[in-house]
Amino acid sequence: MKYCFGADIGGTAVKIGFFNKDGELLEKWEIPTRKEEKGAYVLQDLANAIKGKMEEKGIKMEEVIGVGLDAPGPVSEDGVIHGCVNIGWGTFHFVEEFKSLTGFQVVRAENDAKVAALGEHWKGVCQGDGSMVMVTLGTGVGGGVVLNGQLHRGINGAAGEIGHMVVQPEETEFCNCGKRGCLEQIASATGIVRTAKRFMDKDTKPSKLRELEMVTAKNVLDLAAQGDALALEVVEYVCKYLGMALANVSCVVDTDMIVIGGGVSKAGRFLVDKIQKYHYDFAFEPSKVKRFEIAKLGNDAGIYGCARLILEGKVTENHL
Amino acid sequence: MKYCFGADIGGTAVKIGFFNKDGELLEKWEIPTRKEEKGAYVLQDLANAIKGKMEEKGIKMEEVIGVGLDAPGPVSEDGVIHGCVNIGWGTFHFVEEFKSLTGFQVVRAENDAKVAALGEHWKGVCQGDGSMVMVTLGTGVGGGVVLNGQLHRGINGAAGEIGHMVVQPEETEFCNCGKRGCLEQIASATGIVRTAKRFMDKDTKPSKLRELEMVTAKNVLDLAAQGDALALEVVEYVCKYLGMALANVSCVVDTDMIVIGGGVSKAGRFLVDKIQKYHYDFAFEPSKVKRFEIAKLGNDAGIYGCARLILEGKVTENHL
Repeated sequence: MKYCFGADIGGTAVKIGFFNKDGELLEKWEIPTRKEEKGAYVLQDLANAIKGKMEEKGIKMEEVIGVGLDAPGPVSEDGVIHGCVNIGWGTFHFVEEFKSLTGFQVVRAENDAKVAALGEHWKGVCQGDGSMVMVTLGTGVGGGVVLNGQLHRGINGAAGEIGHMVVQPEETEFCNCGKRGCLEQIASATGIVRTAKRFMDKDTKPSKLRELEMVTAKNVLDLAAQGDALALEVVEYVCKYLGMALANVSCVVDTDMIVIGGGVSKAGRFLVDKIQKYHYDFAFEPSKVKRFEIAKLGNDAGIYGCARLILEGKVTENHL
Repeated sequence: MKYCFGADIGGTAVKIGFFNKDGELLEKWEIPTRKEEKGAYVLQDLANAIKGKMEEKGIKMEEVIGVGLDAPGPVSEDGVIHGCVNIGWGTFHFVEEFKSLTGFQVVRAENDAKVAALGEHWKGVCQGDGSMVMVTLGTGVGGGVVLNGQLHRGINGAAGEIGHMVVQPEETEFCNCGKRGCLEQIASATGIVRTAKRFMDKDTKPSKLRELEMVTAKNVLDLAAQGDALALEVVEYVCKYLGMALANVSCVVDTDMIVIGGGVSKAGRFLVDKIQKYHYDFAFEPSKVKRFEIAKLGNDAGIYGCARLILEGKVTENHL
């Protein structure tokens, strides 16, 4: 029997999955992300955790096909991570460093949002079939594109960065990325709150939103679902721009499926149906996407995607 | 020695290329597109032309790897063409019909704009390397996406339909596709003229455009290059929306190169540099495309792309 590990490195915890070569998750656990000294111990902690699990199970090095890693930062094809503010990392050779810490020959790394898309495609709503675009609505708006069963990373690893499509060229406020008018400014959790504040300032319509000390994206979505008129206006506005951006995505890649993930997607079909409605309004007729789904794997998408980095394609076959 | 044919079926002529298996164009010629009786004779004429060339050269059926076809209409993966107004065709099985007319075993067909992108990638500016998006600025705005050396067609054959990305959601006039605010309404040859008329109506700024009986896209581009202030405003506006749409394309597929083709691209670097400037303004930092090029193959892009449909990938290797 052969195995692999997938490790999803986040700002507070590293989720680790132990898989067999058929992609079955045998065990999962978490270790804290030690951020002291600019995250200097994170990879060593992870190496220890994996080695510990191997000892516990009596697994030899040669039984491990490889380790897939992700982190919330841009990872280029050569395995270099170009900074990761949530962990404190600067630019360094992510893959090489982990190889030398562990002695594993096969280590692959990718950005966390892209890996989540890959995991969701493989073991979530798509079950490995068809092409998909996943958009992750969280603190930011991330995404990933899976074509022919493979993650399409793009030449700079920036494919699927749907949150930074410009949807309002006349916007005057800046996005975190330094541009103006990005989808993320409207459709991330932060963007929803920002949009709600704009709508509240714009008119005097009564709304339960006005009674809250601090408005969250969840408040806006919950109140909209309960029929609060102002909250509903905000959600329609957010979904209009999301639907338009995703219609434009479909003009480029024309996938079978669009999957909505991230914390905001917990609003469920109430939200996803609205996004799909606007997608239909804006989409070129032949490219309208029939399947709009909510991501299924939740926080496990990352570890599945990391395992898929190791178990996909020809490289794996050569190893087995 | 083995050969293949590529045939680019247009509204006025069918361009035919005769290639060796290494993709060298040995000969090219044209036959008129007979549009009488809803284009009923077009495929028979093409079959005769190819058979005639084979006789002339003394080439046997088994020496021909296959024939690649394109036409200005949507072609689905099963080889069905879904209407082609320029020729008079309705929906029919394009590939099967040509197979039964000729007896060739390997016939493949694709939409003309996509095939032009594939041809341009293979033998034009990219010489087969890297990933690219091509946008064709003609009567309409078409395009194609080439990833890993392969045309990415999309599940409905609508990948690369950049002209129908919505860039002005508040637009009130309709695009030919039935939507409002498409890039094509601004950046096609027709769109440039329409934009110029709007700018002329909007203010009274003097311009040589006002002295023309009928304004063409070429007039607008020529006068802009000569420094006519109003024409230049129009060109800046067109390039702004093109640059923004292409920045959004790069957020999705993040390619090495963007290639501008079609009649409008004859305006050359004057136009392409402006598009790239706006792309830079709107693009997410890591996805900025360094290479913006003008298509090189002109009217031959189609026949090269058709040959490539036959000579690419594993199917070809099995045949050789």
